[in-house]
Amino acid sequence: MPVLLAPDQAPALHELLEQANVAGLDCKPADSDDKPEPRIRGLGSLSSAGPSEISFLSNPKLHGQLLECRAAAVIMTEAAFQALPEGDYPYRIVLCSQPYLMYALLAQWFDQHRLRGLERGIHPSAVIAPSAVIGEGVSIGPLCVVEEGVSIGKGSRLGPGCIVGANSRIGSDCLLHARVTLYHGVKIGDRAILHSGCVLGADGFGFAPDPRADTGAWAKIAQIGGVSIGNDVEIGANTTVDRGALEDTVLGNGVKLDNQIMIGHNVRVGDHTAMAACVGVAGSTVIGARCTIAGAAMLSGHLVLGDDVHVSGGTAITSSIAKPGRYTGVYPFAEHTLWQRNAAVLAQLAQLRRRLKALETTKS
Amino acid sequence: MPVLLAPDQAPALHELLEQANVAGLDCKPADSDDKPEPRIRGLGSLSSAGPSEISFLSNPKLHGQLLECRAAAVIMTEAAFQALPEGDYPYRIVLCSQPYLMYALLAQWFDQHRLRGLERGIHPSAVIAPSAVIGEGVSIGPLCVVEEGVSIGKGSRLGPGCIVGANSRIGSDCLLHARVTLYHGVKIGDRAILHSGCVLGADGFGFAPDPRADTGAWAKIAQIGGVSIGNDVEIGANTTVDRGALEDTVLGNGVKLDNQIMIGHNVRVGDHTAMAACVGVAGSTVIGARCTIAGAAMLSGHLVLGDDVHVSGGTAITSSIAKPGRYTGVYPFAEHTLWQRNAAVLAQLAQLRRRLKALETTKS
Amino acid sequence: MPVLLAPDQAPALHELLEQANVAGLDCKPADSDDKPEPRIRGLGSLSSAGPSEISFLSNPKLHGQLLECRAAAVIMTEAAFQALPEGDYPYRIVLCSQPYLMYALLAQWFDQHRLRGLERGIHPSAVIAPSAVIGEGVSIGPLCVVEEGVSIGKGSRLGPGCIVGANSRIGSDCLLHARVTLYHGVKIGDRAILHSGCVLGADGFGFAPDPRADTGAWAKIAQIGGVSIGNDVEIGANTTVDRGALEDTVLGNGVKLDNQIMIGHNVRVGDHTAMAACVGVAGSTVIGARCTIAGAAMLSGHLVLGDDVHVSGGTAITSSIAKPGRYTGVYPFAEHTLWQRNAAVLAQLAQLRRRLKALETTKS
Repeated sequence: MPVLLAPDQAPALHELLEQANVAGLDCKPADSDDKPEPRIRGLGSLSSAGPSEISFLSNPKLHGQLLECRAAAVIMTEAAFQALPEGDYPYRIVLCSQPYLMYALLAQWFDQHRLRGLERGIHPSAVIAPSAVIGEGVSIGPLCVVEEGVSIGKGSRLGPGCIVGANSRIGSDCLLHARVTLYHGVKIGDRAILHSGCVLGADGFGFAPDPRADTGAWAKIAQIGGVSIGNDVEIGANTTVDRGALEDTVLGNGVKLDNQIMIGHNVRVGDHTAMAACVGVAGSTVIGARCTIAGAAMLSGHLVLGDDVHVSGGTAITSSIAKPGRYTGVYPFAEHTLWQRNAAVLAQLAQLRRRLKALETTKS
Repeated sequence: MPVLLAPDQAPALHELLEQANVAGLDCKPADSDDKPEPRIRGLGSLSSAGPSEISFLSNPKLHGQLLECRAAAVIMTEAAFQALPEGDYPYRIVLCSQPYLMYALLAQWFDQHRLRGLERGIHPSAVIAPSAVIGEGVSIGPLCVVEEGVSIGKGSRLGPGCIVGANSRIGSDCLLHARVTLYHGVKIGDRAILHSGCVLGADGFGFAPDPRADTGAWAKIAQIGGVSIGNDVEIGANTTVDRGALEDTVLGNGVKLDNQIMIGHNVRVGDHTAMAACVGVAGSTVIGARCTIAGAAMLSGHLVLGDDVHVSGGTAITSSIAKPGRYTGVYPFAEHTLWQRNAAVLAQLAQLRRRLKALETTKS
Repeated sequence: MPVLLAPDQAPALHELLEQANVAGLDCKPADSDDKPEPRIRGLGSLSSAGPSEISFLSNPKLHGQLLECRAAAVIMTEAAFQALPEGDYPYRIVLCSQPYLMYALLAQWFDQHRLRGLERGIHPSAVIAPSAVIGEGVSIGPLCVVEEGVSIGKGSRLGPGCIVGANSRIGSDCLLHARVTLYHGVKIGDRAILHSGCVLGADGFGFAPDPRADTGAWAKIAQIGGVSIGNDVEIGANTTVDRGALEDTVLGNGVKLDNQIMIGHNVRVGDHTAMAACVGVAGSTVIGARCTIAGAAMLSGHLVLGDDVHVSGGTAITSSIAKPGRYTGVYPFAEHTLWQRNAAVLAQLAQLRRRLKALETTKS
């Protein structure tokens, strides 16, 4: 953790665990541990955490790092604790059934601590339409623009330079980082996290051939649908979610989108589906719940993917998938000359198959 | 259509058709139709349009939906009308030779209606250089920056937070949505539509090795060309068009670019060529007129693509293409284990070919 | 060069060469040249440079263009000069051991000339926290936001609409073009060039499964690391570099990133490595020094690439690479029907290999 809390702001270990553990995990210091209770100034990995930081073991392969760890406290499972050789470790041991989830909660606690330190309120340089309805405790940063008919639910924060288009609706306790752009008519549920540069509600890409204008000319199909986003959604930096042609583009509850993802118009994404960076989903495709789409995968338009479909990175999905499972289509890389030699054969595959068939026939 | 017009703003059917049909299509209510004329509050698909909306049939496969459609009016071809079983349909029938194009025009009408309702004028928070030349009826939103020497043609609108760099030139009747960025020396024709987050005129990626500075170090090749864009161009959200190294990067008339496209320096794109989202075109490539490049395709640098070339989604174009047609190069996806088994053979293809050849030789 | 200097601002040839040649290249007008010294208003390619522009020959294949070139002066190697047929060329000849590097320096000179003409100072519309430390000669454009605890080194310029998050640190002589976004805790060295729309320090994409909340639900792993960037780094338009989960994401000295690149959390990139547009690097991958990653390549997470590794465009790197060299994995494109025929065989490759093996066995 590059910046540690000042010592007078650092909580005692038990305070930190109580405050962070909103999920009610089974998590407490090991009984056998009689070291004095440390104050915790930060959170770090096993190999980097210093003597005022808490750490965690979630990946069993890193168990050996427990021997050298210099942290103030380490979260681990009962099993990891039992496997620890006897010895004098400098850290307090915290037993937890789900160390990785507990790590997530601790990181949230430290980030919330930082956020609580920020000024709140509505900055005088923000340009806010008189008809906008701003909930209690809302924070609007410098140089934001909030247009007519917008509503922003209680406790939401807009970083500097956000733009909220006319008649858009933001739920409560949302966090819009600097420079988020919502077009008009974009609806966002509660507790959304939107990152800088994301654009929600730009026009979908729709054109009708208009040969009267010129050979090959296109007439714009104005996009008069909107965007509708559930609760607990996170959208990464410079990701774009286009508005629907006639109806809304829809992201379900708990959807997580990384950076530089493109969601085309009319797409529907089911609850808790997560997509890694650089994914593209073309128009009108419907994706089920609890899917994962790995980085730089591409989905063609007008497909239907069922629930629990997992797409590997860099894979082009060009037809619908009903069956849960993992799907892949990536050209394996190799040293360039080796690739070159083998790739040249790709243009003859059908012919090779025929030749093989011919040999088989003559043989029999 | 998520938001309907207020009833007192809704045009009568014939008014709507007259006002929308700027293309002069053959389009009129069916003579045999004696239903009272409805007022039209919105536009929807056959399956979703309600009793105050107009709809259309452009895809013959959806003809069956005409039986259940609850719209106020439906646009269809004479042939679709003739194929409609006798019955008492709740909608007025509008005959049109090109229902899809008419749909585009109707959607434009509704979007224009919304735009006409917006405030116009130059917002006092915009920072505009004294030397900028602003045409009649231009709208400049809050917190825009217009630098020295810029000219903006009549009737153009800039949404909130746009930045127009020094000596750039925007034609008339352009629509820049919120937060469009033009560097200096970017020229844009008339009727452009630019979406949020797009960046025109950033430096092309050019470096000369500079071993004097350090092993492997690069000297920047400053990019002193510009960007030149024709009329009727649309550019999607977060798309980037780099400035040329010495001359301009050029987009022709009627070019349509979707979101998150990258156009490298010195690229030239011919009239009416359309590219779907996430396409990348590397530097100095020249693309003809009326091409279509589907989503996430990638074009290497210094290529020449002729007119009427169509590139499939996810395809890497690594050499020039003179002949019109459709070109593809996508690894077909499969269930992961099946893919794994077959992909492993790719590294042996050249060897397999040799072995096959050997068998053929011994046989003969 | 789309815009030429006014004649009274154009330097004489020897002045330009002296001022531009900061690298101390061996570069001087050919002795045998007794033409009057021109004033140089611009820089152009051999085929486009006019009689007030300087040009250069770096690619030997273009030697023939010297015969028709109308430039005021041309930079070339001694060898190119010797190979030039006798004749009366309109241009002065400048001999240089590295014409391409000299071209880079000349382009820099012209761009610096433009930059020097811009207003400097801190625009009154910028919102700057009282605790920010602003170095000597710093320029901050209109509508920037500089938050608490920021420091900006001497001579750096921020274009309009930049946002610098709390406690971030920008070195000296940096150039941030319009609308660059830094989150809190982002450190940037000296002489950086950051392009519009780039976002440094957004949250990495990290989630822990949280089945207590809902089947398939995710708990956010707040990202409490930062971003740390060396000297002489350039980052392209709409590129994103995420902050680390616990430690910093790191770009070394001299790293060059093109547009729309995605660098995931915890990634480390070695000195002088360059990446072309649309590259994605997933979390925790470590890339060595002096690598080049061509456009739209994708690197999976948790890999290690050594120094001097060169990845071809569109290639998916899915495992670590220790050995320097060039690596490729691209599906070769073809006319669509040809591709279709051959691609269909990919799903049977393992089977084809077995059949071939069977034939070989029976034959022997």
